[in-house]
Amino acid sequence: MAEQYILIQSAPLKAFAKSMLMGAGVAVDRAELVAQSLLEANLRGVDSHGVQLLNFYIEHMAMGCMNLTTNGRIVTESGGTMTYDADNGIGQVISDICCDHTIRLAKANGMALVSVRHSNHFGAAAFWSQKIARAGLIGMSFCNATPLVPPWQGKEPRFGTNPICMAMPGAPETGWLLDMATTTVAMGKIFKANFSGDPTIPAGWAFDSDGVPTTDTQKAVKGMPMPLGGYKGYGLALMVEILVGVLSGGSMSTEVGGVRIRTRPMSCGQAFIGIDVERFMPLDEFNARMDKLVGLAKDTPPAPGYTEVLVAGEPEWRSLRKRRVQGIPLSKGVWQQLGKTASLVKVTPPEVADIEYQG
Amino acid sequence: MAEQYILIQSAPLKAFAKSMLMGAGVAVDRAELVAQSLLEANLRGVDSHGVQLLNFYIEHMAMGCMNLTTNGRIVTESGGTMTYDADNGIGQVISDICCDHTIRLAKANGMALVSVRHSNHFGAAAFWSQKIARAGLIGMSFCNATPLVPPWQGKEPRFGTNPICMAMPGAPETGWLLDMATTTVAMGKIFKANFSGDPTIPAGWAFDSDGVPTTDTQKAVKGMPMPLGGYKGYGLALMVEILVGVLSGGSMSTEVGGVRIRTRPMSCGQAFIGIDVERFMPLDEFNARMDKLVGLAKDTPPAPGYTEVLVAGEPEWRSLRKRRVQGIPLSKGVWQQLGKTASLVKVTPPEVADIEYQG
Repeated sequence: MAEQYILIQSAPLKAFAKSMLMGAGVAVDRAELVAQSLLEANLRGVDSHGVQLLNFYIEHMAMGCMNLTTNGRIVTESGGTMTYDADNGIGQVISDICCDHTIRLAKANGMALVSVRHSNHFGAAAFWSQKIARAGLIGMSFCNATPLVPPWQGKEPRFGTNPICMAMPGAPETGWLLDMATTTVAMGKIFKANFSGDPTIPAGWAFDSDGVPTTDTQKAVKGMPMPLGGYKGYGLALMVEILVGVLSGGSMSTEVGGVRIRTRPMSCGQAFIGIDVERFMPLDEFNARMDKLVGLAKDTPPAPGYTEVLVAGEPEWRSLRKRRVQGIPLSKGVWQQLGKTASLVKVTPPEVADIEYQG
Repeated sequence: MAEQYILIQSAPLKAFAKSMLMGAGVAVDRAELVAQSLLEANLRGVDSHGVQLLNFYIEHMAMGCMNLTTNGRIVTESGGTMTYDADNGIGQVISDICCDHTIRLAKANGMALVSVRHSNHFGAAAFWSQKIARAGLIGMSFCNATPLVPPWQGKEPRFGTNPICMAMPGAPETGWLLDMATTTVAMGKIFKANFSGDPTIPAGWAFDSDGVPTTDTQKAVKGMPMPLGGYKGYGLALMVEILVGVLSGGSMSTEVGGVRIRTRPMSCGQAFIGIDVERFMPLDEFNARMDKLVGLAKDTPPAPGYTEVLVAGEPEWRSLRKRRVQGIPLSKGVWQQLGKTASLVKVTPPEVADIEYQG
């Protein structure tokens, strides 16, 4: 089945997102920040973490599950470490504040770890690692999330897709940027397949609800995503859970709610790490070394069936450059759902055009 | 083909390893440390990182490729960060010193990162994360290694199996301990299959030398291991390369030699991270939270075909408890190779018994 798409430029899409958030009671500067974080994901081609999240966020806000005005508070600050209580605040607002603390503490101590509890969904992790990186640091970000993933050999969900993300202080729109779920794919990609009406997903993405591998989109949506490579992805998910859930003193594993559970706060956690590369060498030298590393990877002759070698972040930066000019394609399924969400907060969607697009 | 094994208790095996190292010119306290690191890997069932590494170490030492007496030196120390030049020292000797620096700096600053250049193979990463963890910290360790792994979509090796390792300050022989190569398996497991005479390896472990997937052990030994889960494992390998190779100012990617390249120093790098959990909460509380997290994982009902859910580290601790009592089984292929290596340094192997063992 050919999928149907609409095309929208980033400015009106961001304005639409911002209006919806303000319609849900979010203050203008906060709505701007959340809209920006979602827009950047769409521009980077990471549509699973773009504006389609508003379908969850707005309903969550409308149910009174989120504190729209709090800034959270510092619980402990000591050397390069901080525990932060998000007070059920907007994930992006809290993360923005906590990245600022990460930057401050890393510059003062060489490196820093800020672990955050009782927070909400923060969008794509890359947005936050990049914020830390723009301050001249290596930026890392992590979160736990709705328990959707079973431990290896288990049949019930216990862990989120718990991403690992790392961004470099060099050129912000080239180079290397890792943002990966510790599952084979982020659950958002399975949701996107569902929103978009795809009947099947690739093998290796998901289990059905009995813990048996499946390629049926409907079964996968009701089922569970697979840990990356099996038991190792499960190990990485717990590494993230420890940095985020255990160290913060917040919710972990099945204690975490979710963007799809609209009757209670999500209470997820985040962790941010900053590493001051200038403690190791001048920033220019570090950036030159990164360029060299990326060059060594990209110079590799392609394997049979491929024409080039990419590095992490490269597909997204290609999308960013293209979508800034050409606009953002959204599946009609996502767009229609956004229209319904917009009607809840009395916002009229902008006019858009149907397009031919191979998602 | 049924594989043939010998059985040896840990005390005589360690004494044998230590004698071989001393025969190669390593001072007694250093030989003790290296032998201990290899023995612990064998006890934990990680035979790829056990005494079979002496086949490489001893030849490397005999070729004059390693500085057996140096302690290396601090290049920079600033806040929680340090760059360390290993001066081509013994990997375990350097790592022991650098873990002590990591502990000291993490206790002073809340967390610490020590990045090490011009080093040599440090054995299993778990040995070092556990050393840091015994000081009451979360311990992490990483290394780059012989370029054996192609970037995703590439056909020539550019990166090592670059492990990620994390150990907890709680109960040292239970709980959770992650030590994983960022390939589907560590190259050592492919070598072990070769030493042991296994004709085939599981699918997903390796490419042949043209970058085409293979299950033929001989082709795999001449070929390349696969990144974990494809492009994500490749991303994680570069994350490690950045912490270890880029930040240290040392060798990276194809600049790194190897335990199999006996004509020049290995010049690999290591990185160690310590996180002082007591900056976040009392250690007892942290350990209780870890127990809870592990319990939440292990309480998951098993998926079809499985009888229990394990956590990272658990299979190795089971092996440790068993092998301490029953001794360490080594394949005859490994044992015969160790005998040849021992003859180089004029050491006589201890008497051992043949056993029936399902490796």
